Amino acid sequence: MFGRMTEPPTDGTSEPDSTLTAAATLPALDQQGLAALRAVGREWQDGAPDLPAWEHALPVDPRLSYEADDTRGGSRFVAIVGQGAPGAGSVEAHAAVPEHSSAAMRLGDRVRHVLVGPALRSTAVAEERMRKLVALSVLSSDALSSVAYGPEAMLAVLVVAGSSQLKLSLPIAAAIVLLMLSVGLGYRQVIRAYPHGGGSYVVAAENFGSFAGLMAGAGLILDYTLTVAVSVASGVAAVTSALPSLSAETVPIGLAVIVLLVLGNLRGVRAAGAVFAGPTYLFVIAIAMIVVVGLLKASGHSFHAVAPATVHATQGVGVLLVLRAFSSGATAMTGIEAISNSVPAFQPPEAENARRTLSVMIVLLIILFAGTVVLAHLDGAAPRSSETVLSQLAHRSVGGGVLYAFVQIATALVLLLAANAAFNGFPRLLFYMARAFLRMGDRLAFTHGIVVLAVIAAALFAGFGGKTDALIPLYAVGVFLAFTLSQSGMVVHWWRHRDGHWRRAAAVNGLGAVLSAAVLLITAVTKFSAGAWVVVILIPLIVLGCRSIHGHYETARRALTPRPDDSHGALHRRPVAPLTHTHHGDERPESQTDPHDVCHLIVVPLAGLDLSALRALAYAASLRQPVLAVHVSPEPDEAERFQGYWTAWGAHLPLEVVVAPYRATVAPLTNYIEALHAQRPDLTLTVVVPDVVPVRVWQRPLHSRIGVRLQRALRAYPGIVVTSVPFHLPAT
Amino acid sequence: MFGRMTEPPTDGTSEPDSTLTAAATLPALDQQGLAALRAVGREWQDGAPDLPAWEHALPVDPRLSYEADDTRGGSRFVAIVGQGAPGAGSVEAHAAVPEHSSAAMRLGDRVRHVLVGPALRSTAVAEERMRKLVALSVLSSDALSSVAYGPEAMLAVLVVAGSSQLKLSLPIAAAIVLLMLSVGLGYRQVIRAYPHGGGSYVVAAENFGSFAGLMAGAGLILDYTLTVAVSVASGVAAVTSALPSLSAETVPIGLAVIVLLVLGNLRGVRAAGAVFAGPTYLFVIAIAMIVVVGLLKASGHSFHAVAPATVHATQGVGVLLVLRAFSSGATAMTGIEAISNSVPAFQPPEAENARRTLSVMIVLLIILFAGTVVLAHLDGAAPRSSETVLSQLAHRSVGGGVLYAFVQIATALVLLLAANAAFNGFPRLLFYMARAFLRMGDRLAFTHGIVVLAVIAAALFAGFGGKTDALIPLYAVGVFLAFTLSQSGMVVHWWRHRDGHWRRAAAVNGLGAVLSAAVLLITAVTKFSAGAWVVVILIPLIVLGCRSIHGHYETARRALTPRPDDSHGALHRRPVAPLTHTHHGDERPESQTDPHDVCHLIVVPLAGLDLSALRALAYAASLRQPVLAVHVSPEPDEAERFQGYWTAWGAHLPLEVVVAPYRATVAPLTNYIEALHAQRPDLTLTVVVPDVVPVRVWQRPLHSRIGVRLQRALRAYPGIVVTSVPFHLPAT
Repeated sequence: MFGRMTEPPTDGTSEPDSTLTAAATLPALDQQGLAALRAVGREWQDGAPDLPAWEHALPVDPRLSYEADDTRGGSRFVAIVGQGAPGAGSVEAHAAVPEHSSAAMRLGDRVRHVLVGPALRSTAVAEERMRKLVALSVLSSDALSSVAYGPEAMLAVLVVAGSSQLKLSLPIAAAIVLLMLSVGLGYRQVIRAYPHGGGSYVVAAENFGSFAGLMAGAGLILDYTLTVAVSVASGVAAVTSALPSLSAETVPIGLAVIVLLVLGNLRGVRAAGAVFAGPTYLFVIAIAMIVVVGLLKASGHSFHAVAPATVHATQGVGVLLVLRAFSSGATAMTGIEAISNSVPAFQPPEAENARRTLSVMIVLLIILFAGTVVLAHLDGAAPRSSETVLSQLAHRSVGGGVLYAFVQIATALVLLLAANAAFNGFPRLLFYMARAFLRMGDRLAFTHGIVVLAVIAAALFAGFGGKTDALIPLYAVGVFLAFTLSQSGMVVHWWRHRDGHWRRAAAVNGLGAVLSAAVLLITAVTKFSAGAWVVVILIPLIVLGCRSIHGHYETARRALTPRPDDSHGALHRRPVAPLTHTHHGDERPESQTDPHDVCHLIVVPLAGLDLSALRALAYAASLRQPVLAVHVSPEPDEAERFQGYWTAWGAHLPLEVVVAPYRATVAPLTNYIEALHAQRPDLTLTVVVPDVVPVRVWQRPLHSRIGVRLQRALRAYPGIVVTSVPFHLPAT
Repeated sequence: MFGRMTEPPTDGTSEPDSTLTAAATLPALDQQGLAALRAVGREWQDGAPDLPAWEHALPVDPRLSYEADDTRGGSRFVAIVGQGAPGAGSVEAHAAVPEHSSAAMRLGDRVRHVLVGPALRSTAVAEERMRKLVALSVLSSDALSSVAYGPEAMLAVLVVAGSSQLKLSLPIAAAIVLLMLSVGLGYRQVIRAYPHGGGSYVVAAENFGSFAGLMAGAGLILDYTLTVAVSVASGVAAVTSALPSLSAETVPIGLAVIVLLVLGNLRGVRAAGAVFAGPTYLFVIAIAMIVVVGLLKASGHSFHAVAPATVHATQGVGVLLVLRAFSSGATAMTGIEAISNSVPAFQPPEAENARRTLSVMIVLLIILFAGTVVLAHLDGAAPRSSETVLSQLAHRSVGGGVLYAFVQIATALVLLLAANAAFNGFPRLLFYMARAFLRMGDRLAFTHGIVVLAVIAAALFAGFGGKTDALIPLYAVGVFLAFTLSQSGMVVHWWRHRDGHWRRAAAVNGLGAVLSAAVLLITAVTKFSAGAWVVVILIPLIVLGCRSIHGHYETARRALTPRPDDSHGALHRRPVAPLTHTHHGDERPESQTDPHDVCHLIVVPLAGLDLSALRALAYAASLRQPVLAVHVSPEPDEAERFQGYWTAWGAHLPLEVVVAPYRATVAPLTNYIEALHAQRPDLTLTVVVPDVVPVRVWQRPLHSRIGVRLQRALRAYPGIVVTSVPFHLPAT
């Protein structure tokens, strides 16, 4: 899949796998693959004229249909219907839990249903496209909420040089606004060029190759993780600024919030969109209100800045300090890329709507950011551990009443929404990064990614004591790595295509690339010892991990793809030990795709001769292949006794009794079966294990699950099939 | 098994199951059972003349033999040998880990080998019989070590009434000595009547029925658990008396000791016997030395008692206080029953040797107990939280030098040995109590019981802060319940048999029963609020749990035992829904013990048409039974694509495509298979699942293990067999 990313985009050609829809699980076959399939099939036809044509002799009617069942309070897929064309009519399945499933399963299902909501149909993806107003709220929350911590992070660096140097925030903020404009315009170009979405990872991969794509992806993985940790930390700070008595409980509150986010997201995208549409607008209104009121008040004293409470310098002003302040302030830009990642989530015309939404977002971001910094300067706000800068500004502008509470609540909510946005985006990113996370569970909001994100973010949040300041140095590296790769990738893109206004577009992206690279470098160098080193180490590790996973899938794909010569098993043929019997070929059984090639030996391990054992023997014998029964006995006396029972039964099958004086059963059985396998590696050994199934869960440990343990032990051997023949006990 | 306990002992008749050897795992069949087996076998013979005689056509030679393999640094069971008689020669297996097992398995095996030692052969049980001197040490440690806490527990009750009342210890101790004599003589009778051992549980079960046996067993279960907790607590107190600086670490030290005991016991009985032979004798010598030196010193002042340090009374003297002191002091009797439980562990003549050892033990116990109490009175020792009474006596008798250290070390060691004895006895008890614990693992010292005991004892020890005093009230109830049931059961035994001197024997046991019952009642009443209530609640719970387990095994045994009419499945025949097809019988498939009756349908669930799928299809078709392939697709488009591949392959088998828009795979498959099953409940449905097996452990989560999940979901349905066909990937 990664390899495919490096190809130029196919723009809706008939290649079925070119756009990875969330539902695509069946790998596409090219002409060569189809030819191989046909060859394999011909071999089957030619080699096995004696196979019965079961098509017309199936003992059941395989065409089942879906049917509402009111007696069970729901509709289920159990009905049997005789009508319908006898052709290849496919059938719709319902995801209900089967009727006879255990009480534990049903309980688990009910709990999951209450906590997580009903299963969504795959086709619901299309219905979940967002209108612009909702999209702005949902997708901009990450970027806009950065205003809650970005300016403060910048001031927190400057204050080290004394409160008198806080005025440096104005020129630094100006530089950051330029950066916002440039990167924002750059992402508008991304949306134009990549209307199917996919963000920095796709852009980097398509223009620089999969390695750069992985780098960008790794940066974004860290970005999402830190977005959750920083947003939750900052949101809790907004709450504890208003209610200082809660500040001792910062970590538990934050962890509880993360748990709520997980549960909310397991309910699915739509619910998240509907519930969380408001906070972004409330936040914009709240900050705008503070800034406007504050500026009005400042106009009362001719915009003379109030001097901040004196803080003595612990460090002189220098280039390094200014750069660190700049890089901290630049965290206000995190989340800018969200819209370009999610173009397909917009209503049509997707790209156009996405571009407009992005423009609105950039303008809002710049206004809020600049307004906050200017007002902080005018009001003489300085960062304090007990109260956020935003809370200070709110106090000065609107006092301590209902309006102040509104500001703090809106801030906390928008940060919650930003963390939630990371929960939406992270699984999508992983979906692109590795097929490993493609299995999405019953819900559309990929369960795996949500849980992984929550665990890492919670660990970071708790590990850094829930302090926003401590997390900020880790934040920017991943974001600006992704920005840099995406923007420079776009330059390559325009150069390759050279259509229309490509020079202007390339210039926009080039500026964005240069500025982003500068921030990346500044952050990595100036914040290295403060925490950026964690990210600098993690990114290559993530890239390596992804490459390993990708390499494994490539190997698996190659090993699993039929090739024309596979009908003879040539691909997998290996030198094998000389055989005692030579009337069969030396083909490895797992490469046999022709039923005629499969040579069977069925081994039935027996602990005794009870009904479960007799049932397994009957099952094995009824397959009409060679059967060997094996009994493992701890003592010779007992072995003899078993021989007696066997004789009484009639000794209808060959039996071997193994005396294992070590009381272990699985190990000698595994050894014995391995030795049989070594005699004839071309045989397919089927181990038929009797499995006594009790009714209740508490009764399970009372029966040795030899079958499961044998299966685990024999899984390492090729060509050994394990069959579990159940025998159900009645209820006690 | 419980039911059998109520029958009179069979004294070595040919009934193979009458003495439960540790190795017995194969249930015995009576004549009726053998007849049923023959009937089932005849049915097979008659009904299936068309089955090939595989006896002479096996593709492998099943006779494998054991062979040393020096190249692997050990001997393993992998060799293939052509010689040897072609008859029913049984084969010895070695418990080594198979060669191709995973690295994790091999590492685990190596770690276990280092910690736990090599596997013991079952026949080693017979070799582990103990000489009397060793038996006295190992089996008496529990009883004799009780002297370390029994007298102190008694004094700790009396001191509440002020130090002046400590002199009451003398008459109370005299009563306890009488009790010791009586119960000790009673257990001599038990050994005579039950030379095969089994202790209170067996005696109570055989004379009063299984319910009383369970009561006694539950009492002993608690006894063993508390022996570990109290012995460890008391042993740590011996150490902290000598080294007061360690007293803050009481709980960690005790837990570490329990862990060491677990590891030691997982090494097996023999190692335990050899290593721990000495401490009991050292302890006897140490206490004897203190008592003798102390008495010599006391003789210097004409045996006038030193007044203890004044402690003011917080409570008056009353009958209740005296009874409580009596019941606390009676904990010095715990462990008296150990020898009668372990008669078969003695060298022949077992019973005679056991009786002699018991007599020696009782005499030693009385001397040590009485000596300690008398000396404590003479020396004016009073219980203190910082120093044990025994340590005080040692200080007074031998000062604080090497001899004092010797006393404390011997005390700690004998208590360690007592805890260890519980680890030996507990699994044996469980072995008698329920077949659930019969699976003994690779080691003879039943792993399950050891771990259960350690966890409960550690929880009790830590839960009560490692304080002996706090644990004592829980201790006596279980012990004296078992004593009472055992002794009164013996009275019934003698009455039933009425041989030789039965009247005298019955009188001895009758006295023991009355005295034990008195202590039981006193303890339960006077210590109820101090902790005995825990035991009073736990004992019925344990009895109920055991009865449930026993009931389940009885049900399982009945359901699994072949009966003459089972060859027709009549036992399990139930009314089934009317069938669409009626040309087959309505027999439940799991009761089919004749291969001729088994009707097959093989279902192959497919995610795609890769080599693992083609291999599974070839495997299924090669069994020459009706095969149906099923594909679950999340989208109609993909379903159509799969149809296309299927056609390209040649559509050699019937295919049904199920569109499941909920992205779940296992639930719709389970539903579909359940619906097929409902159509024809008489069919044996075999679900053949392709299973892609990667090389490395970290790669496993990258592949959905549909097979395992299907197996779990389908396990509830009778007649559905799950077969896992592996396809091994090459190394990445």
